[in-house]
Amino acid sequence: MLADQLNAVSGCFDLAAQDAVYRAIFTRRDVRSHFLPDPIGDDVLARLLLAAHHAPSVGFMQPWNFIVIRDLERRERVRDLFFAARQQELPHIAEERRELYRKLKLEGICESPLNLVVTCDRGRSESSPLGRWHNPEMDLYSTVCAVQNFWLAARAEGVGVGWVSILDREALKQLLGIPDHVVPVAYLCVGHVSEFAEKPDLERHGWGRRLPLADLIMSEVFSGEGEAALKAVAAGISGSPVR
Amino acid sequence: MLADQLNAVSGCFDLAAQDAVYRAIFTRRDVRSHFLPDPIGDDVLARLLLAAHHAPSVGFMQPWNFIVIRDLERRERVRDLFFAARQQELPHIAEERRELYRKLKLEGICESPLNLVVTCDRGRSESSPLGRWHNPEMDLYSTVCAVQNFWLAARAEGVGVGWVSILDREALKQLLGIPDHVVPVAYLCVGHVSEFAEKPDLERHGWGRRLPLADLIMSEVFSGEGEAALKAVAAGISGSPVR
Repeated sequence: MLADQLNAVSGCFDLAAQDAVYRAIFTRRDVRSHFLPDPIGDDVLARLLLAAHHAPSVGFMQPWNFIVIRDLERRERVRDLFFAARQQELPHIAEERRELYRKLKLEGICESPLNLVVTCDRGRSESSPLGRWHNPEMDLYSTVCAVQNFWLAARAEGVGVGWVSILDREALKQLLGIPDHVVPVAYLCVGHVSEFAEKPDLERHGWGRRLPLADLIMSEVFSGEGEAALKAVAAGISGSPVR
Repeated sequence: MLADQLNAVSGCFDLAAQDAVYRAIFTRRDVRSHFLPDPIGDDVLARLLLAAHHAPSVGFMQPWNFIVIRDLERRERVRDLFFAARQQELPHIAEERRELYRKLKLEGICESPLNLVVTCDRGRSESSPLGRWHNPEMDLYSTVCAVQNFWLAARAEGVGVGWVSILDREALKQLLGIPDHVVPVAYLCVGHVSEFAEKPDLERHGWGRRLPLADLIMSEVFSGEGEAALKAVAAGISGSPVR
């Protein structure tokens, strides 16, 4: 029970608990196609938002807000923004990939019962920007951590989440009355799903392949040789994560 | 066992598995103070990196690399960068908070046995920037998702992680030979720990307090009224997350 958590913060995770965390990570999907119309209970949604709210934040800034969008007409207008943005993006895609791009399902704005915008209020700790003087974008990164917490908790609850990034941000801000100093970091489609696909859609449709983990590891400096033992272990578990 | 995962991607999480995921989320800490000198096994580190590598990425771009830094001399030079950056940040902190700022422990660069830089290669899918034409920062956000995956998996493995954001990024790039088109998104201190603190350090030391979740929820538009039922549930679980 979650009730024990605040009394057991130093506790160890047994193998089953570790595996549950890895399972959420490895089976999370960017969902566009398998949404069910069933509403999400407030108890479930509140837990997911609480998970988001427990993300790390620079200077304990907690810069996020959560806009819950249920109104279908409003979602249809957001979907129109998506259609327009996709048309604008298309010419920037390599010519030989455009036909595939056109076929890809890249959003579930109206099929999912609920949309969620996770925003970043850049002025929330203006007077004491601990950890942000050199890297002002850290508040945006904190907000992304909140999105990822939400996404993983949702996977565990059987709730699918899809992040729609093909949107004109200024048009979205206008539609949702978002003020200048607030950034809509993520536009999420949220709903129960009939299934979580075995592989990411873009992998399944041949848009890309999973890179070998060992090739991404460097030692001491960028492009540095070394870490041969680590790379060997990484290569061994890459295809099929087993303990 | 993780072995079952790829065969059970559509599987449900039972209550114990859901609770494990929430427990990782709620008890994850930004660790600076409780690192043990014990090395991290390659098997553990490879699993954590595999978790990072399974983050969502825009256009399946997988823009990340992982620089493993073990050399103490190099870490001492990074810590010098931190000391310099902290001195530069201090005058920008509100005067009445500067004494507290000075006392805060904000990094564990040399106390942790391993540092990890998670970078974003911005040119990795240059020819087909699916999902990035309107929002080019999406590759940076994908990299942050990888960091959060790493962080949560580490919590489950009993490994502490601290994100050091008080660093001059250009100086760090020079020290680590990072090319122009690559951004060092996160500098992480990584190691086994003697404990995970019950609360975030900055909360414990009075730098900030956890905001009430219900105050952060909006309905349909920014600052929108509504979602009373959801807010009531959120208020009920905010202090102590129970099912």
